[in-house]
Amino acid sequence: MKKIITFGELLLRFSTNIGERLFQTDQIYSHFGGAEANVAISLAKFGHKVYFVSKVPKNPLGYAAEKHLKTNGVHTEYLRTGGDRLGTYYVESGVGPRSAQVVYDRKYSSISQLALRDVDFEMIFSGAALYHVSGITPALSPSLKETVLYSLQKAKQFGVTTSFDFNYRATLWSQQEAAIAFQTFLPYVDICSCGELDARYLLGIEPTGDTLEKREQLAYYYQQIQLMYPNIQWLYCTFRDVISASTNILQGNIYTNGTLYQSKMHPIDQMVDRVGGGDAFAAGILHGIMREWAPEEIAAFATAASVLKHTIRGDYSNFTESEIRDFIHTTPGKIVR
Amino acid sequence: MKKIITFGELLLRFSTNIGERLFQTDQIYSHFGGAEANVAISLAKFGHKVYFVSKVPKNPLGYAAEKHLKTNGVHTEYLRTGGDRLGTYYVESGVGPRSAQVVYDRKYSSISQLALRDVDFEMIFSGAALYHVSGITPALSPSLKETVLYSLQKAKQFGVTTSFDFNYRATLWSQQEAAIAFQTFLPYVDICSCGELDARYLLGIEPTGDTLEKREQLAYYYQQIQLMYPNIQWLYCTFRDVISASTNILQGNIYTNGTLYQSKMHPIDQMVDRVGGGDAFAAGILHGIMREWAPEEIAAFATAASVLKHTIRGDYSNFTESEIRDFIHTTPGKIVR
Amino acid sequence: MKKIITFGELLLRFSTNIGERLFQTDQIYSHFGGAEANVAISLAKFGHKVYFVSKVPKNPLGYAAEKHLKTNGVHTEYLRTGGDRLGTYYVESGVGPRSAQVVYDRKYSSISQLALRDVDFEMIFSGAALYHVSGITPALSPSLKETVLYSLQKAKQFGVTTSFDFNYRATLWSQQEAAIAFQTFLPYVDICSCGELDARYLLGIEPTGDTLEKREQLAYYYQQIQLMYPNIQWLYCTFRDVISASTNILQGNIYTNGTLYQSKMHPIDQMVDRVGGGDAFAAGILHGIMREWAPEEIAAFATAASVLKHTIRGDYSNFTESEIRDFIHTTPGKIVR
Amino acid sequence: MKKIITFGELLLRFSTNIGERLFQTDQIYSHFGGAEANVAISLAKFGHKVYFVSKVPKNPLGYAAEKHLKTNGVHTEYLRTGGDRLGTYYVESGVGPRSAQVVYDRKYSSISQLALRDVDFEMIFSGAALYHVSGITPALSPSLKETVLYSLQKAKQFGVTTSFDFNYRATLWSQQEAAIAFQTFLPYVDICSCGELDARYLLGIEPTGDTLEKREQLAYYYQQIQLMYPNIQWLYCTFRDVISASTNILQGNIYTNGTLYQSKMHPIDQMVDRVGGGDAFAAGILHGIMREWAPEEIAAFATAASVLKHTIRGDYSNFTESEIRDFIHTTPGKIVR
Amino acid sequence: MKKIITFGELLLRFSTNIGERLFQTDQIYSHFGGAEANVAISLAKFGHKVYFVSKVPKNPLGYAAEKHLKTNGVHTEYLRTGGDRLGTYYVESGVGPRSAQVVYDRKYSSISQLALRDVDFEMIFSGAALYHVSGITPALSPSLKETVLYSLQKAKQFGVTTSFDFNYRATLWSQQEAAIAFQTFLPYVDICSCGELDARYLLGIEPTGDTLEKREQLAYYYQQIQLMYPNIQWLYCTFRDVISASTNILQGNIYTNGTLYQSKMHPIDQMVDRVGGGDAFAAGILHGIMREWAPEEIAAFATAASVLKHTIRGDYSNFTESEIRDFIHTTPGKIVR
Amino acid sequence: MKKIITFGELLLRFSTNIGERLFQTDQIYSHFGGAEANVAISLAKFGHKVYFVSKVPKNPLGYAAEKHLKTNGVHTEYLRTGGDRLGTYYVESGVGPRSAQVVYDRKYSSISQLALRDVDFEMIFSGAALYHVSGITPALSPSLKETVLYSLQKAKQFGVTTSFDFNYRATLWSQQEAAIAFQTFLPYVDICSCGELDARYLLGIEPTGDTLEKREQLAYYYQQIQLMYPNIQWLYCTFRDVISASTNILQGNIYTNGTLYQSKMHPIDQMVDRVGGGDAFAAGILHGIMREWAPEEIAAFATAASVLKHTIRGDYSNFTESEIRDFIHTTPGKIVR
Repeated sequence: MKKIITFGELLLRFSTNIGERLFQTDQIYSHFGGAEANVAISLAKFGHKVYFVSKVPKNPLGYAAEKHLKTNGVHTEYLRTGGDRLGTYYVESGVGPRSAQVVYDRKYSSISQLALRDVDFEMIFSGAALYHVSGITPALSPSLKETVLYSLQKAKQFGVTTSFDFNYRATLWSQQEAAIAFQTFLPYVDICSCGELDARYLLGIEPTGDTLEKREQLAYYYQQIQLMYPNIQWLYCTFRDVISASTNILQGNIYTNGTLYQSKMHPIDQMVDRVGGGDAFAAGILHGIMREWAPEEIAAFATAASVLKHTIRGDYSNFTESEIRDFIHTTPGKIVR
Repeated sequence: MKKIITFGELLLRFSTNIGERLFQTDQIYSHFGGAEANVAISLAKFGHKVYFVSKVPKNPLGYAAEKHLKTNGVHTEYLRTGGDRLGTYYVESGVGPRSAQVVYDRKYSSISQLALRDVDFEMIFSGAALYHVSGITPALSPSLKETVLYSLQKAKQFGVTTSFDFNYRATLWSQQEAAIAFQTFLPYVDICSCGELDARYLLGIEPTGDTLEKREQLAYYYQQIQLMYPNIQWLYCTFRDVISASTNILQGNIYTNGTLYQSKMHPIDQMVDRVGGGDAFAAGILHGIMREWAPEEIAAFATAASVLKHTIRGDYSNFTESEIRDFIHTTPGKIVR
Repeated sequence: MKKIITFGELLLRFSTNIGERLFQTDQIYSHFGGAEANVAISLAKFGHKVYFVSKVPKNPLGYAAEKHLKTNGVHTEYLRTGGDRLGTYYVESGVGPRSAQVVYDRKYSSISQLALRDVDFEMIFSGAALYHVSGITPALSPSLKETVLYSLQKAKQFGVTTSFDFNYRATLWSQQEAAIAFQTFLPYVDICSCGELDARYLLGIEPTGDTLEKREQLAYYYQQIQLMYPNIQWLYCTFRDVISASTNILQGNIYTNGTLYQSKMHPIDQMVDRVGGGDAFAAGILHGIMREWAPEEIAAFATAASVLKHTIRGDYSNFTESEIRDFIHTTPGKIVR
Repeated sequence: MKKIITFGELLLRFSTNIGERLFQTDQIYSHFGGAEANVAISLAKFGHKVYFVSKVPKNPLGYAAEKHLKTNGVHTEYLRTGGDRLGTYYVESGVGPRSAQVVYDRKYSSISQLALRDVDFEMIFSGAALYHVSGITPALSPSLKETVLYSLQKAKQFGVTTSFDFNYRATLWSQQEAAIAFQTFLPYVDICSCGELDARYLLGIEPTGDTLEKREQLAYYYQQIQLMYPNIQWLYCTFRDVISASTNILQGNIYTNGTLYQSKMHPIDQMVDRVGGGDAFAAGILHGIMREWAPEEIAAFATAASVLKHTIRGDYSNFTESEIRDFIHTTPGKIVR
Repeated sequence: MKKIITFGELLLRFSTNIGERLFQTDQIYSHFGGAEANVAISLAKFGHKVYFVSKVPKNPLGYAAEKHLKTNGVHTEYLRTGGDRLGTYYVESGVGPRSAQVVYDRKYSSISQLALRDVDFEMIFSGAALYHVSGITPALSPSLKETVLYSLQKAKQFGVTTSFDFNYRATLWSQQEAAIAFQTFLPYVDICSCGELDARYLLGIEPTGDTLEKREQLAYYYQQIQLMYPNIQWLYCTFRDVISASTNILQGNIYTNGTLYQSKMHPIDQMVDRVGGGDAFAAGILHGIMREWAPEEIAAFATAASVLKHTIRGDYSNFTESEIRDFIHTTPGKIVR
Repeated sequence: MKKIITFGELLLRFSTNIGERLFQTDQIYSHFGGAEANVAISLAKFGHKVYFVSKVPKNPLGYAAEKHLKTNGVHTEYLRTGGDRLGTYYVESGVGPRSAQVVYDRKYSSISQLALRDVDFEMIFSGAALYHVSGITPALSPSLKETVLYSLQKAKQFGVTTSFDFNYRATLWSQQEAAIAFQTFLPYVDICSCGELDARYLLGIEPTGDTLEKREQLAYYYQQIQLMYPNIQWLYCTFRDVISASTNILQGNIYTNGTLYQSKMHPIDQMVDRVGGGDAFAAGILHGIMREWAPEEIAAFATAASVLKHTIRGDYSNFTESEIRDFIHTTPGKIVR
């Protein structure tokens, strides 16, 4: 089996109980997470041989982060240790009309101190089939921006399929900074997660003057992106209708060969934990592409994977392919006994 | 006061916190439950003198099961002890679109090892007014199948009103096996809980070719059942519209003397625990019949009892008759102070 | 900064976990609360200098009650100690269709034993800008009824703006008793919280024969009240549409100078704790009036403050003015990161 | 089987987690308890037919208190309902060197409002073998003091064995008040729990001038008490050596026919909950006397019952006679598998 | 690296909170455990390549059991799936003088249904260095008794070092049955865990008439065993002085070449979880033998490993070799910062 | 009332449940703490007007840290905001023989980025009576080392009594670095907390060749220190005998005018949380000195304050002076009711 590589930061997350503000009580919940690590775990759960590239400190927090990956089936041979600290963040859980609030404490993290020379991408990409990274990684330090570009170029040299998820975070850098960086990456990207706002504000694509449905508008943006970067084979994103922090409606979109495929719309009520929902979707898309499923099947699968993630506490989806298929084919909410 | 008898298995249930998968954390919740035991407890709570017939092992699990009954007002003089083990089962709680998952570990349970000669039904039915058993009990072993048939026949000999709830469980036996067994029971049944799928797949009644509303379709099935088994005086079931694992709409149906009576439709949001909802409904029906209420009142009461059960953790409903009446007559969700 | 004074009872509340009945498990949650104390805390959080007038026993419960106020920024110089006990109450949390149930154990509380001569209102009102009390306080004892009347009269003598919230509690006194008391208070009130039922059953205002929308009906009642008590400058209340104990729709109303202003309607799903929702609304109204905002802005702010309160466990709102403004200007439920 | 009667207050207790002060977090534990009710439950657990005489309010707290008794096998036919409130108390759990702190909120409780005429002692004592009451009950109100005296006299008239436990509580009344009351009771008492301090300060018995061991000193006091009240057949108490709130050494004493019998000394480490330890001891003594065991056997059993109580959370001992016997005959702390 | 093989049952354990009896509350803790699995995990943690041979059902309980092993670094290629159920057991946690109580529900477990032909020991033992099994495995069924004997013989054929831990469980079989079985195994055993009671009651070795110290007595027994089974190179056990369920004193013993080596005595106070303490000791011994440490070093290490296990919740020790060494070389209880 | 100033870092601490390793479950406990902040809180609790000088980030973690101080009565006017992050640390709770493990993540904290010019010590010390800082603060950055020296000099200029606690942390700097820094501070110190190891390894004082008792040895060291720094009026430390992580024996020492005063020895069993024990002791010493108590009374009080801290979860002692006095005068562990 060929390797899958993901590259990014692994963070320690603290979150409150539903209905409690940060530090309202002295009890808090801890989970390990991070966009590319979540994707890695889902892909490992689907049966792939996945390696996570990152750097964690040499202390019990770093060891626990590494154990988190191993427990969930991800290979850690390419995980560097050292540096100053493990990034952390805090989530005040949202509920009903009240939004979740996120506070980051990720500055000076070990991975942000990673230098290009610290990673042997030639060794990593030899025997690899797929490489996934998101727009969070280059935002963490200038050195990582350089490293991400290098890694994408190297991956293409080694014939590895590349996957890039925009994941723009306004708290890490400006739109302008991100736009410049992303535009250097995209010529080396085969599969790309990006939404309407990304297309508009980071790639500078103007909406058509015509009154279009949401679906048609997205197709238009994706068409434009492929004109700019004909190397991109797949584009994908979700439509999320936020009724409240507890109720969302989710629909998955995937675009290839000039056609946009959509999953059905999934209402999600009494949402448990939204963090990692996008990563579960990305992992579903990548799994489908690796398995060469039909685009409509990929959209259905990835969206179902994401929906299920919203119903469990923690950052990553630990559902198997067969559990996700069962979910697609049965009435949501029916007791199974 | 005349005795009410129920006969079945008492199990120990383990369930997860909402939002957690089985064994995601080391904390789990334990409750005692079982269809006929839940009915017994509700009827005891309504003021009846109820006896539960079963068999539990002679160990702390069996003693705890017995205490569970006593605590909730059920008489345990007819509870046999001995045999190998107490059946258990595991519920991964569902939430939002994700269904609950049930794993049974009930094989070789003490009650499944019960022999016909172990129970003195003559003594049990003397002075009894009502006997209730469900289709789970005969599914547990050939010996219990024989015992259930015998018990229904004996009950009729003693002039006891008999109540049978189909409760077909596909994990315990095939439709064909259940169909054969149930058809031997029905000639001795006065009150019967059975739904559309039961009528069609276990009693072999074909749907009418006409386009009927759900309500008319059910009335048609019940009419056919009474043609087959004129001894059955009452038929009942709920319509459950599963929006998600957290949101259901429930409506109760009861059929007697050729007429179908329906409760209003109750939306249930943020559902806490669905297990035992059907048992609470059955207990409400039986209570109403014992009290000789009007059918529409029975339907309203039983449905309300079931709705309330969905809002509390655990297998049985511990609401009193007056609490259920209050619920019927006030706006659901209004704070009472 | 001028002082704000509120006067009322501080209680210790016990509440169950969602999905559990009272004493179903041995774990229960404790919070301090009370209508006027909750208003005091919100106003302190908004930056005012707030004093709470009350009486608590000289024991660890009284000390904890006092600490609760101090922790939340309320001045306790006017808090008397002594008397027999701290009032308590028990809330069986409602969920979905099942209503919350409240059991009071507040008889013989220290504040109910407070005599008029125990409080030096001249000292308290000197340098004060606003005085707030609700209809719960006079219901606690004849002596408190007399004290409330005296305090309102005294406040007006000192040029203090007075605020009165009907807060009629049927478990404390009859409509007739309350009506008589409230009608003696109203001539001294500048700002008044009262709803349709209050207008009708406590002030004896008949509905118009015409078929009016809810909004017009309320405007009519408020018009009538101002005819009876021209001293009242502001009238306010919320419309609460109770879908279930977990889902409400909330809209705020404020009336001044002959015009009724309404907030938009806020759906609240997966409600966490409804207790104190009205107090958060009142505090928002008072804050807006103190700040001399436009009426529509006051309505929007106060309703948002109340909505947010419903999403956290505990009796009082601890959101700052800027958090509430953020809530008004962002999509409810969007993750903030 | 003849009846056993106990008479006293049933309270709702709130306690903190070990290592937390009162209201340090919003989580607290609730249990029902009360000296005579705890004795009643232990005796019921030992197989006796026990009735508890008391008064609880007609509200969900009162119903829960009644359910607590029934769940634990105590008959509640003589439990009156009505009055103002259920007494409560708060325990800040002690640990290591830090003592537990108790705050009572029991004033105006329903039982304290009980009048002599409210209880039909003739009916209650007819068919009874044993009557137990403690010195807490008469301390609650003048009316209860009168009622306790009357009840003891009445019990003797009906040939019922009487048991009185001093249980002097300095927060309820002065030594002088208690002394006067107790001395009117003792002429009607057959079995009496009283310790050295009781003998000295409530019965006015001076210590001997001689240097005596603790054991000899106690025997001396008991000798003197029997000289004063020759009707008392049995006297008992524990020696408790308080190393810390977590570590005690317990030894039981029982005196009859001029001889003092002692259990062995039981070290108790990592104590879980001390409340109710004395009641478990009293119940063990009464059970032994009822069963006519040898005094040394009674002392061993009662002390073991008390030791086990210290190892579980909650107010009463729910160990069976056979579990207590097993404890006596095995090495404490050995795993049983 | 050569393989290590262990063979036994993996169970699901439920345990109460400290201070709570079984089913006193509805909250319970679940862990996976089992003697040979615990040894496997510790050895994997120490850096060995360990395989666990067993059989678990094809259901979520079986999958979770398998995940438990993988998460902790144990290879599961030789784990068979199928059969009726996963064995479970219940632990009522002991504390202070009260012993823990264990209730087993392991009858009909999948492994007990394993047949000799189901396991390919030739494949398993090829490339293996060490094979460990305990006396629990053969007690589970006649077929397993046969399989254990066969496996030990096969291991010796393949030149694998064999390790056998008596682990006699009186609830599984009689002393006589165990004695017969064990005596057939011992001729094929190189390393053996057995204590004084084992030597006396299962191997029939009489104590010397002389008054010997505990240490000398054990040396005598081990000498006798080696006379009977000269193939046994290593014998080991712990001395456990049970002060209470919370306080034990532990000392490790290992015997080889005619000399008994002892660790120092480790007092353990405020013990958290005793289950698995013996398995942690066995794993420490086996690790030391594999690493060819000096016997005194092995005794020190294995005892330290066992002591640390007593301080954490759960069945297995997850301490690394370096953490155990740190523990040996620092003052127990000193804060490390 | 004159001001008391303390200066140091405020950290967010995460700790595990007793019996759990870091990240063994997803539940963790959070508290705010820090040596000088803990001292500040205790002194505020004792009735002083205390100000804490520090720097915390402008984010919800910083706001929560500030609220922690205010809630506990400490003035925050001199708390600067800004900088990169709030320091955090993780405690794996020790129990029995297993030590607690601390992992720091405090690098790049806001306070470590504080520059000398950021603090207006002239304003701070005007009207101040006492200034307390510990050896942790100068270890955090070169700039803080400079700032601490400057602050001590400035304090002396303003006639403020100065207090310095060695608090040497080997993870922050080497003995040599600390020694150099501390020796520049000591000429400006009036009250000093330092132990035997500090005297020996940081001040280079050799032990006497004579065989001295522990007490005499300490007196000798203190004598030598006063010879070196005659400005130091008071020296103090505790003797801590670590039996295990759960059992310590604590004794307080204070030295002044050539005499060493000692408290009695306090055994602490079932220790809850050792963190902050030294800070509670320091606060007790400073309180006693401020109140001009006799040295033996100071030693008794400070040690009692420290002992009580060990019995509660969290970093600081929230006991009042009168609670500490009660503890001194009653038998430890006696229930107070």
